[in-house]
Amino acid sequence: MSQVIDFYFDFSSAYTYVGLGRIEQIARNAGRGLNRLPVALGAIFKDRQHSPPAADSAKGRYLALDLARCAAEQGMPFRWPRPFPYNSIPAARGYLWLAARDPDRAADYTRQVFHAAFGEGRDMSSIADLQSLAAGLGFDLEAFAAGLHSPEVKAQLVAQTQAAAGRGVFGAPTLFAGGEMFWGADRLYQLENHLVGAGR
Amino acid sequence: MSQVIDFYFDFSSAYTYVGLGRIEQIARNAGRGLNRLPVALGAIFKDRQHSPPAADSAKGRYLALDLARCAAEQGMPFRWPRPFPYNSIPAARGYLWLAARDPDRAADYTRQVFHAAFGEGRDMSSIADLQSLAAGLGFDLEAFAAGLHSPEVKAQLVAQTQAAAGRGVFGAPTLFAGGEMFWGADRLYQLENHLVGAGR
Repeated sequence: MSQVIDFYFDFSSAYTYVGLGRIEQIARNAGRGLNRLPVALGAIFKDRQHSPPAADSAKGRYLALDLARCAAEQGMPFRWPRPFPYNSIPAARGYLWLAARDPDRAADYTRQVFHAAFGEGRDMSSIADLQSLAAGLGFDLEAFAAGLHSPEVKAQLVAQTQAAAGRGVFGAPTLFAGGEMFWGADRLYQLENHLVGAGR
Repeated sequence: MSQVIDFYFDFSSAYTYVGLGRIEQIARNAGRGLNRLPVALGAIFKDRQHSPPAADSAKGRYLALDLARCAAEQGMPFRWPRPFPYNSIPAARGYLWLAARDPDRAADYTRQVFHAAFGEGRDMSSIADLQSLAAGLGFDLEAFAAGLHSPEVKAQLVAQTQAAAGRGVFGAPTLFAGGEMFWGADRLYQLENHLVGAGR
């Protein structure tokens, strides 16, 4: 039985950048659809009274090292966007507008935003930069920008974020397959093992 | 060149329980000594103004699931000690006293404390229970208890914890090999790869 994998992420999540290619590959290999669900993780952090570790703390310094190692293991470039975290809400809203029109191109947009942010270190809060990605995918610049600011899209991101929090999402990437939750680019092997087991 | 691996941990760290066997095996395979360095992680958390996630939070619930999965992957039993975290300072002091007398039996003690705590769910803050482990390893009950309360041992644990914090330790297990730091039972493959590269 083909069931969809729910994939919650935030466009400002460095570990989602590191895991994205494998997540797509795992879903493909298992013959499952991938339901991309960008959320505003900052809002969930705020509700949890959680702050990510400061860049100049012991944990922040280690995580920077770890991200560089994890990216290098997969031959991926890694650069911190400046500033970090960048405001990922425009990118998420842009995704929602695109996905309602063309899910495949919205998936391309997702890859491109993550690559620009963490492969090239660009600040992808820039609406002009998001517009030029959308235009490169064949969408109208002005319609994209208008869509991104529409009340419907704004409400959809809020609702999607609340739904994620309701399912226990507290970080990214988080994946749900057949009721099982997996958090972290370093737990994708568990998702894969689960899907292999479920396919038997 | 054989260099020692510095292994920082806290006796109340569930991920150290999950990683301990592999840590010992990696060091053995690489022909490296393993320098076991228990610390009082609570003191480091306090300085960092960090609290581990509450057991009834979304993250706390997920970590409980993750620990059960990680233990099951290795065929290890897993039970939360009650209470959790338990006060691990007596166990750490006991280790220091034992290690000064017999490092091999102190290593056995380490395995036994972790197994009792996370394999059997016992509260290993109990000095009587620690004494009975030490006695089972051939040490004198009273000498062990007196040693555990000695000013020298207390000062050694404080100094070791401060040194760990000074090296950037913020969680457990944390390993240092040749100046490189590795944090987490899920990063042991990186330690292993590093040692293989260093041995070429």
